[in-house]
Amino acid sequence: MRYFKNKEVVILKWIISLSILSFASVVWGGNNDLLIQANQIFSPLPKVMLSEKNTVTPEKIKLGKILLYETRISVDGTVSCARCHPISLYAADGLKKSIGNNCKVNPRNAPTLFNAAGQISAHWIGNRVDVEDQAKQSVIGPPSFGMPSYEAVEKILKEIKGYWDLFNKAFPQDKDPIHVDNFAKAIGAFERTLVTPSPFDSFLRGNKKALTEDQQRGLNTLIQMGCITCHSGTYVGGQMYQKFGIFEPYWKYTKSEKIDEGRYDVTKNESDKYIFKVPILRNVAKTAPYFHDGSVDKLIEAVLIMGKIQLGRNITEQQGEDLVKFLTSLTGVIQEDVLIVPILPSRE
Amino acid sequence: MRYFKNKEVVILKWIISLSILSFASVVWGGNNDLLIQANQIFSPLPKVMLSEKNTVTPEKIKLGKILLYETRISVDGTVSCARCHPISLYAADGLKKSIGNNCKVNPRNAPTLFNAAGQISAHWIGNRVDVEDQAKQSVIGPPSFGMPSYEAVEKILKEIKGYWDLFNKAFPQDKDPIHVDNFAKAIGAFERTLVTPSPFDSFLRGNKKALTEDQQRGLNTLIQMGCITCHSGTYVGGQMYQKFGIFEPYWKYTKSEKIDEGRYDVTKNESDKYIFKVPILRNVAKTAPYFHDGSVDKLIEAVLIMGKIQLGRNITEQQGEDLVKFLTSLTGVIQEDVLIVPILPSRE
Repeated sequence: MRYFKNKEVVILKWIISLSILSFASVVWGGNNDLLIQANQIFSPLPKVMLSEKNTVTPEKIKLGKILLYETRISVDGTVSCARCHPISLYAADGLKKSIGNNCKVNPRNAPTLFNAAGQISAHWIGNRVDVEDQAKQSVIGPPSFGMPSYEAVEKILKEIKGYWDLFNKAFPQDKDPIHVDNFAKAIGAFERTLVTPSPFDSFLRGNKKALTEDQQRGLNTLIQMGCITCHSGTYVGGQMYQKFGIFEPYWKYTKSEKIDEGRYDVTKNESDKYIFKVPILRNVAKTAPYFHDGSVDKLIEAVLIMGKIQLGRNITEQQGEDLVKFLTSLTGVIQEDVLIVPILPSRE
Repeated sequence: MRYFKNKEVVILKWIISLSILSFASVVWGGNNDLLIQANQIFSPLPKVMLSEKNTVTPEKIKLGKILLYETRISVDGTVSCARCHPISLYAADGLKKSIGNNCKVNPRNAPTLFNAAGQISAHWIGNRVDVEDQAKQSVIGPPSFGMPSYEAVEKILKEIKGYWDLFNKAFPQDKDPIHVDNFAKAIGAFERTLVTPSPFDSFLRGNKKALTEDQQRGLNTLIQMGCITCHSGTYVGGQMYQKFGIFEPYWKYTKSEKIDEGRYDVTKNESDKYIFKVPILRNVAKTAPYFHDGSVDKLIEAVLIMGKIQLGRNITEQQGEDLVKFLTSLTGVIQEDVLIVPILPSRE
């Protein structure tokens, strides 16, 4: 079975990671101070997820938010970014796999837009450099907006008079600002503001009462068990690619309808088979269903599967409950401005 | 041609209406006081569009607004009320005909939800008694939510724990409040608050400067030309059924792909052929495309067609421009609360 080709190597890497972790755990003093320990592994959300390539300005944010709701630039007039990332469902859509123009099914589950911009790449398999690239590619993506070309998108945007002023203000240096790259930058700028501070951030900043006892126990389990080898940093994930199914093939436990080869689809390297970007865990309790194919509905079920196939461990009922409780502390507050629907400019 | 069967009768009725109008016009003193005249024909929006059958309470409004965004009760998980009535496009969707579950095309253009509840019925042909009835029927409507039964909808709502409290609070008298009739009442209650006060309301209340000179000339044209025979009252329409194409068949001028027999589909009375509810003109400048089949894109084009086929007149360029300018004064303000997206309760 080709699947096991790199198994030994991966497990070896794993054992090294876990050893470093155990050593670090001893240095930190084990359970002595969960707060100090957590601050070594995680960090609170920034106010804006900055990018060197795309300065975030109020004018870009304003335009980007409008464009996020724009359906008229999709081939059947029904698809906007917000269709698969509705704010009402924490900027995910609750479907296993998103449905785009003309009922085409997208290859993978729609990740939330919240805190997306802080990750190493957008989506699951590293074929979208960043949120700007994702916004740009999606308009011509066959299962998403389905437009025949970038020019076709620009043409429609130019026909909607209200966009002239909005693009001019957001890109004052550009002579011809209605361009798909600026479209992408504006949406990206808006996305870079989509942070959702949570009780966990409050905890990290020193407020120990922000997490209940159960949640602190869950956090401790997350650390001790080794989940943090992948799920660490500001976003509790989203910083590396990893094989899904280290100890056993994932499809033995998920309810996957087909085997997705992950990053192999992009690189065609055998070693990238079943490799996916580690998803962030922020707002995970609000963004069911789970995994790249949305094949699992319940958070507890997803947690147990992760223990089994990523750590080779049977998570106990108590551990599972604690972990889920901790994960709910990652549910953040959506900023008021983000909740306000923009009114799109009309054609006339 | 069957179409002309009742033509003489309709034209006779029409001549009588126009005569009464002309007489009234003389009594009012012609152009002497446009404001007084306008107040005889129209009235400003109420704060809430009340119903005897459905008391509007804050708890119902809150629940109704959430349910408006609920996609999980549609057969493919993609349809909510807000899909065909997105607030960002003035609660219409910009499509000729809305596209529902599994890419099914709805029979007619989606009217805006704004000011909808004040009309004699919902939608185009009188097959939906009121906004509550519309909300209820849509969940099992094959081209909309497409659910197999009301019970199937109730089952899903019951599975989403957060709804229990919301329904209990909105319907405190009910032992088993998660019921499709309450679903409909909650959405209806929210819709009954969806009024959009406009410069025209300000004008009607006595502020003559609320309308520009052009707009006042357009209003005068609307009155003198007889458009107000149908487009009158608080909503500037929405209070009667009328034949679309009194002087000539509508499809000679619109770009209709097929002939829609209108209310005949409901009653099977020959006299109801090509009869539609008169649409309201509030926010008409924001809710292109036009007519029951969205077959016309531009407002000026729609205005000229109406003159031709409803009044048997050629509207001049100046009259057309003035009318369109007046119609933009019916674009109202969306209330702040309405612009805020609700967060849906999660399954767990």
